[in-house]
Amino acid sequence: MTQKQFSILELDRSLNTEIQDKINQKTKPLNSLGKLEEYALKIALIQKNTSPKLSNPTMLIFAGDHGLAKEGISPFPQEVTYQMVLNFLQGGAAINSFCIENRMHLKVIDAGVNYEFGEVSGLISAKVNFGTKNLMQEQAMSLEECNLCIERGAAVVREVFENGCNTVGFGEMGIGNTGISSLLISKILDLPLEDLVGRGTGSNDTELKSKLKILETVSEKYSTSKDPLEILSTFGGFEIAMIVGGILQAAELQMVILIDGFIVSTACLIASKISKSILDYCFYSHLSSEKAHSTVLKNLNADPILNLGMRLGEGTGAALCYPILATSVRFLNDMASFSEASVSNKE
Amino acid sequence: MTQKQFSILELDRSLNTEIQDKINQKTKPLNSLGKLEEYALKIALIQKNTSPKLSNPTMLIFAGDHGLAKEGISPFPQEVTYQMVLNFLQGGAAINSFCIENRMHLKVIDAGVNYEFGEVSGLISAKVNFGTKNLMQEQAMSLEECNLCIERGAAVVREVFENGCNTVGFGEMGIGNTGISSLLISKILDLPLEDLVGRGTGSNDTELKSKLKILETVSEKYSTSKDPLEILSTFGGFEIAMIVGGILQAAELQMVILIDGFIVSTACLIASKISKSILDYCFYSHLSSEKAHSTVLKNLNADPILNLGMRLGEGTGAALCYPILATSVRFLNDMASFSEASVSNKE
Repeated sequence: MTQKQFSILELDRSLNTEIQDKINQKTKPLNSLGKLEEYALKIALIQKNTSPKLSNPTMLIFAGDHGLAKEGISPFPQEVTYQMVLNFLQGGAAINSFCIENRMHLKVIDAGVNYEFGEVSGLISAKVNFGTKNLMQEQAMSLEECNLCIERGAAVVREVFENGCNTVGFGEMGIGNTGISSLLISKILDLPLEDLVGRGTGSNDTELKSKLKILETVSEKYSTSKDPLEILSTFGGFEIAMIVGGILQAAELQMVILIDGFIVSTACLIASKISKSILDYCFYSHLSSEKAHSTVLKNLNADPILNLGMRLGEGTGAALCYPILATSVRFLNDMASFSEASVSNKE
Repeated sequence: MTQKQFSILELDRSLNTEIQDKINQKTKPLNSLGKLEEYALKIALIQKNTSPKLSNPTMLIFAGDHGLAKEGISPFPQEVTYQMVLNFLQGGAAINSFCIENRMHLKVIDAGVNYEFGEVSGLISAKVNFGTKNLMQEQAMSLEECNLCIERGAAVVREVFENGCNTVGFGEMGIGNTGISSLLISKILDLPLEDLVGRGTGSNDTELKSKLKILETVSEKYSTSKDPLEILSTFGGFEIAMIVGGILQAAELQMVILIDGFIVSTACLIASKISKSILDYCFYSHLSSEKAHSTVLKNLNADPILNLGMRLGEGTGAALCYPILATSVRFLNDMASFSEASVSNKE
């Protein structure tokens, strides 16, 4: 149970027939837009509107550091987290290009990077601490810190919502967070780590073995209940916990939610264990090439939109699938019906 | 051999290493953008420029009628072709929504619709005839008409090129052209029709059986050599032949070419039999749910970008994948390198 309570409604399906009829009357063979018809229907149901609109689509990147990174679970050094945050703010990262090209706003949140940014233009500070603790010595964060993350992630979402955004993507940055996600999934789904630990940013065979060993060591060190918050606070990280809070809040506000890759999907899995109804608001942008992403998606009963061998995170997959959702909404609103266009229907 | 000769160069790979190095220096784990890195490389090679640009992306829809449609190879009546052309011009069709949302220009070409449009604003007239002949009685068109189609399709592409377009998508409209495409593929690849005939716009089981029987009858009626132009002129249609000409011309002009679904892929297959080098310029937008599309793509050694169960045609798949290519180009041009952003690379 989170300290903050979210009241998340299941999808209201009362307009289902009306929306489906509208789709079926469009000047095209029945069902010929495939999954785009499903997306249009789901978005219209979320918005309880046969003419939905995606407003101020916004990507939120939460960044945080992981104490365990010091043990070598990533081929990149920990300082890359703060360096990449600065890169986001200067517009030089992949997600900047992806958001500009696909017309999403971008906001960068310091959830708990191990760096003193001072006053940096454009950075939203929600820092809980300078990185989580090293799991070799102690658990990543306290339950109190975890609840603080949930609340701060939710607050960021509330703010963009209040500024007219109804479509939110989640992205992340945090050296080591692929490994941490594998730990979280292992505990949540009770699956062996060796089936869940992949190459992350590009571990070679030796690094992968070492990473698995470290993760197995800390996995054995902490026995947790099945409580998602207990698992999350035990293993971290701050950015993942804030995304959990952000997803819960976005679902409560009945926003369209774009789930990115492996790490955001892990946050989504945790959020779904707190409230299953969040899934009614989520779109799964892509199947990443990270080893266990398909396991997580399967557990979420999720059908990813894209499958392009990407494994970068930052929200890149979510930004890339945004135009596909926008196109779904556009055809639902703008296409003529058979009668409007005087086109003969199937004989 | 087409009457008009195209001089299509193989892809010049001399910048390969330079472009790949540029991609590898971007602030992201190596290869972590997956297929987007391949798309960026291919576009840069096509343009022989490490900083490529997609200019005035334009969708060309070629529309034509098929005499065989009168025998009942589609659940929609033939007049839907002209009705949909008018729908395109009025902005009410799927491809209008798809092009607007994904920022492509749209041009509609009458390749040979069985309708007298008169002067209609926005329609490019390249009409060769009022639909092809009914294959039950005679072959679809003469070799002369087929060559005229090649030339007129090429002329349309030259015109958009001269107006600053270097990225062209191909779409089509023509009641019955899914069946005609199956015939073409069967003859080109020497495969049995029953493996190639699918439901098109939505034939039910009875309609599918009848469609297959009609197509088998006309397939047996005409024995052709392996010459792609002979096959194309025998079976049609005008819109498919113009797309063949358009693809050949676009490849000669070293444009980026977006192949849509089943019918445009069939045109691409035919163009590749005239000049294999066209394939160096093509991107395959999606795997349609039309039965034999995967067969065609496999023969083209093509890896489709999207797989969303679409089967509408018109260029909808091509328009939907355009932002993915644009994002590939954007990251290649705009992302910072590790040194530019002062980000530490892999240890």
